[in-house]
Amino acid sequence: MAEVKIGIIGTGVMGSDHAAILAEGVANARLTAVQDLSRERAIAVGEASGARVFAGADELIADPDIDAVMVCSPDETHAALALKAIAAGKPVLVEKPLAAGIEDAEAIISAETNAGRRLVQVGFMRRFDPGFREMKHTLQSGELGHALFLHCIHRNAVAPDYLTSDLVIANSAGHEFDIARFLLDEEIASAFVTSPPPTRNAPNRQPQFILLRTASGVVIDIEVFTDAQYGYDVRAELVCEDGTVSLDPSPHTMLRAKGHDGFRTPPDWRPRFRQAYRAQLEAWTSGILTGQPTGASAWDGFMAMQVTKACLQAWRSGERVAVPQHEKPDSY
Amino acid sequence: MAEVKIGIIGTGVMGSDHAAILAEGVANARLTAVQDLSRERAIAVGEASGARVFAGADELIADPDIDAVMVCSPDETHAALALKAIAAGKPVLVEKPLAAGIEDAEAIISAETNAGRRLVQVGFMRRFDPGFREMKHTLQSGELGHALFLHCIHRNAVAPDYLTSDLVIANSAGHEFDIARFLLDEEIASAFVTSPPPTRNAPNRQPQFILLRTASGVVIDIEVFTDAQYGYDVRAELVCEDGTVSLDPSPHTMLRAKGHDGFRTPPDWRPRFRQAYRAQLEAWTSGILTGQPTGASAWDGFMAMQVTKACLQAWRSGERVAVPQHEKPDSY
Amino acid sequence: MAEVKIGIIGTGVMGSDHAAILAEGVANARLTAVQDLSRERAIAVGEASGARVFAGADELIADPDIDAVMVCSPDETHAALALKAIAAGKPVLVEKPLAAGIEDAEAIISAETNAGRRLVQVGFMRRFDPGFREMKHTLQSGELGHALFLHCIHRNAVAPDYLTSDLVIANSAGHEFDIARFLLDEEIASAFVTSPPPTRNAPNRQPQFILLRTASGVVIDIEVFTDAQYGYDVRAELVCEDGTVSLDPSPHTMLRAKGHDGFRTPPDWRPRFRQAYRAQLEAWTSGILTGQPTGASAWDGFMAMQVTKACLQAWRSGERVAVPQHEKPDSY
Amino acid sequence: MAEVKIGIIGTGVMGSDHAAILAEGVANARLTAVQDLSRERAIAVGEASGARVFAGADELIADPDIDAVMVCSPDETHAALALKAIAAGKPVLVEKPLAAGIEDAEAIISAETNAGRRLVQVGFMRRFDPGFREMKHTLQSGELGHALFLHCIHRNAVAPDYLTSDLVIANSAGHEFDIARFLLDEEIASAFVTSPPPTRNAPNRQPQFILLRTASGVVIDIEVFTDAQYGYDVRAELVCEDGTVSLDPSPHTMLRAKGHDGFRTPPDWRPRFRQAYRAQLEAWTSGILTGQPTGASAWDGFMAMQVTKACLQAWRSGERVAVPQHEKPDSY
Repeated sequence: MAEVKIGIIGTGVMGSDHAAILAEGVANARLTAVQDLSRERAIAVGEASGARVFAGADELIADPDIDAVMVCSPDETHAALALKAIAAGKPVLVEKPLAAGIEDAEAIISAETNAGRRLVQVGFMRRFDPGFREMKHTLQSGELGHALFLHCIHRNAVAPDYLTSDLVIANSAGHEFDIARFLLDEEIASAFVTSPPPTRNAPNRQPQFILLRTASGVVIDIEVFTDAQYGYDVRAELVCEDGTVSLDPSPHTMLRAKGHDGFRTPPDWRPRFRQAYRAQLEAWTSGILTGQPTGASAWDGFMAMQVTKACLQAWRSGERVAVPQHEKPDSY
Repeated sequence: MAEVKIGIIGTGVMGSDHAAILAEGVANARLTAVQDLSRERAIAVGEASGARVFAGADELIADPDIDAVMVCSPDETHAALALKAIAAGKPVLVEKPLAAGIEDAEAIISAETNAGRRLVQVGFMRRFDPGFREMKHTLQSGELGHALFLHCIHRNAVAPDYLTSDLVIANSAGHEFDIARFLLDEEIASAFVTSPPPTRNAPNRQPQFILLRTASGVVIDIEVFTDAQYGYDVRAELVCEDGTVSLDPSPHTMLRAKGHDGFRTPPDWRPRFRQAYRAQLEAWTSGILTGQPTGASAWDGFMAMQVTKACLQAWRSGERVAVPQHEKPDSY
Repeated sequence: MAEVKIGIIGTGVMGSDHAAILAEGVANARLTAVQDLSRERAIAVGEASGARVFAGADELIADPDIDAVMVCSPDETHAALALKAIAAGKPVLVEKPLAAGIEDAEAIISAETNAGRRLVQVGFMRRFDPGFREMKHTLQSGELGHALFLHCIHRNAVAPDYLTSDLVIANSAGHEFDIARFLLDEEIASAFVTSPPPTRNAPNRQPQFILLRTASGVVIDIEVFTDAQYGYDVRAELVCEDGTVSLDPSPHTMLRAKGHDGFRTPPDWRPRFRQAYRAQLEAWTSGILTGQPTGASAWDGFMAMQVTKACLQAWRSGERVAVPQHEKPDSY
Repeated sequence: MAEVKIGIIGTGVMGSDHAAILAEGVANARLTAVQDLSRERAIAVGEASGARVFAGADELIADPDIDAVMVCSPDETHAALALKAIAAGKPVLVEKPLAAGIEDAEAIISAETNAGRRLVQVGFMRRFDPGFREMKHTLQSGELGHALFLHCIHRNAVAPDYLTSDLVIANSAGHEFDIARFLLDEEIASAFVTSPPPTRNAPNRQPQFILLRTASGVVIDIEVFTDAQYGYDVRAELVCEDGTVSLDPSPHTMLRAKGHDGFRTPPDWRPRFRQAYRAQLEAWTSGILTGQPTGASAWDGFMAMQVTKACLQAWRSGERVAVPQHEKPDSY
């Protein structure tokens, strides 16, 4: 089987993490190029992985020796870089969100539709997490009947100061919007948001409680609490007519020490979703080679943004807000 | 220490369950009388426990050999019987709800206030469950900071045919309304309700999702699903600024058999709350002897009814509804 | 129902704990007398519970106002006090071990047999723990077939300095010897003991690993580790032909805080077995009133001592040692 | 990086499982050849994976287009094939046991020592299981102090009829012998074996209880129960001076359905150790490319066989048996 030569644009937290996974060895994939506004940062990653360091993103995208591109740069740059990759006819994995604005996301969908083939994948890596996959598999098997409720919890230990209440919704909850659509295989119809006051640990933002309803009536509730102190914790329970299936957050080992029996919570999302990030890379490169993409599409990225927008309106108004529905192009 | 001689009015599911616990032996308590509209049913319980069988509730309440009364008869009869017990100056434990209508509840509060001492306790037995008590103790200790979210789940395996969507809110969710007030020590300010469609197992009612907010801003969400098939399941997680405390639903032993590892879910609420029912009886009789009641008061019963009413309005309107706030009489 | 008036001899850790439980209220039981070599200690407990303070154990046993006696004094005094209670025709609950030497235990069995009725119960409270009872119930139900293995763990957080390797076997493991006989309903046939070196936290004693085999061939292994640091922990898994049943050590609530998800381990055995101690008192007094004792008999206490003796020989010799078998008198 | 071209000898359960994992994509590895005594079976695997089918094992080993060999054929053939691979200078991964007899294992060690480099790896895949690796990491970190006990459980749902009590020890327990040496980083010094009677489900063999002691005094107990009915279950708890670390057997999701709360136990070892098998292949090929092998060596395979032999003697004699200690050649 051939090998996909990958270039990474943006070697911050996410970009360097992807580079580290590629360096460990991913079947059929090789990291050959990196680029970052901070050349120093790009060089560090390049040296660790043996990848060439490019001065600019455009050169990297254009280089004939690069088969596929990962966009891990700041959110505002996602759309422009994705469009360039499409123009170059190269598969591109864009970290979420797909774009900073809805219009940009629409432009990507148009460009991809015109290109006549799926080139864009959005980095909703939870779709490759074994737990979420088992949940979906259980629902699809039909053994538990239809879905009724999806309870979601998204907790970070700490968050940066710049994170506002708006960004808790716009940034942190995005993964839940996508995974709900993925699990339930339908669109979100409406949103309602309420929230407790800020905590002593983060006086400048409020934890959020988001209540969604799908077209068929499934109720989805999401706690997003970015300052939970004790660790990173993502939970979900899917309640169906004849039973429920839920994520098991426990790691490979349990510890009894210092007056506690249980396990240590991870400090951030990277250890929790390591396996998902790796499987996402394997599936992406394998999809490139076979021509059958399996990850989140530009359409998925666009719909997650529509839900985000409705949630922000709901949060500001205190009212239930309808999520605009669009006809999905045939290509998705 | 003296002994409290107890008469039970209504020997259906709840009444006969209380009688069985009393027969096992509760410190300072003795079941001496029972009464039921079905004399046959009363005789069965009376014979099993050695209690006298009364033909009518009024005679039982009036009998000088009876110190305290438990009202376990149908909901519509609660208020009238409670008022008679107050008139007779006898402590009365009324199964929830306190009354069938708000006005009746107010009449009980007036009568008790006029009587000059606490005579009424409402059978919110969860307040005596070791798990809920530990949750409250943890919150009160201050080690986790203020409360932010309270996630509640209330599932029954199956429910009777007569249960409508309205009754799912009015009947099943009542325990959550009270325990939220108990845990958080404040009143519920507003309610919002949404719900998925009926399930194939119960086409005539919808599971419910209730979203409450307290005066200080704590967000409480309650899934009430009366047809969960797999068993009776009550869960709760209290999310605070520095950590969370949650109920552990696992029983005393775990089982590995027939392809499963875990535990058997109880068929209904009685095994789950056996210890709570017993502790409630112990606390009630001990409170009678010491003159210091510790259970849910008539005021608590009244406030739970106010929340119920707001939830029913919210469910019908699809809007957020404010819960009317009342000044608590000094006696509570 | 009548009331059992109880006198406690020995108000150290165990005696004062029993007194506290009786003071909370145990059906049909009342603490009326206490005695201790330290008169000060006896007075403290007496004042807290309203019990009379006796100067000597003999007077307490002889007092006509005392129906039943609890022996919680040092091990060496157990046998003599039990014999006096038997002579006085009074039921007696002796803390384990039944006696300090095998001959003394035999004397108690003779005296009780001559008395013509069961007067002695040994304080193996685990027989009243809901978890162990469920394990036994599951085995007896036959649903899992015959027992094959019983894995036991007995860990203390810390132990006093005077505890030697011998005492780890003679003192700490006694509860496991009894509960194994109780669960399996048969006698222990042989013992083998091996052990790791002392730990840095307790250089003067070794943790122990005890391997027993019952008459029918069930294999019982017991880890006894009195210096486990993290907390008090008793575990057991009963492995049967078609599945296993095990104790669930988790408490009523779980905690997520400070980088941990799980629960706090109790510092010692009292919170863990609080419910068992209470149920033991209820069963003991109820057995006295009905004349049908249900707890561990003098015979059980004697057989636990036989196993202890064999284990000590096995530990010293490094060989497998047979446990002497005796014919059980008809009265047991 | 270069690619390792792999040939599999023996395409039964294990061989075809390895082939399936390689077909999914393992970094730097490609399955290029298969061989089996049953040509039909070899062709089935060859067609599914695009590998050439060889008529004989010798040809496969000799083929210049094959870089490394996996020996998955019957136990009796392991040694001869491993020796041929060594003679051909090719890395070889031999499924456990390394050889059918101790002398054969010694011959392999001699041959490899003469070859002057590590060519042999034994398929003790548990060394690559994330849970066992975390256990070892926790021990090595020193945070819990020295090891005292290692409790191991190895249960199969069902076993083939030909499995005798001897084979329960010789075959099933082998993984525990190796993982104990791996975790504790020292040799096993003695063995003692006892066992309950056969079960109704497998009347021709006994479950086994194996008690080992390491050179430094760590006590290792192993339950090996090949007919546990409910599923495949491997558990381990490592008890150290200041706490314990144990495997968490729960999978990625939990299920509440049909009266149960918990998870489904896997039917056999393949789903349980899927990740370990894959990581083993990744580490093996990566070790071939870098010249730094990380898996179990021929020496490890030899020592596991020594422990097996001692356990069989202990089982037959009922006595404690010393495990012969050998000086480890410098090359290991």
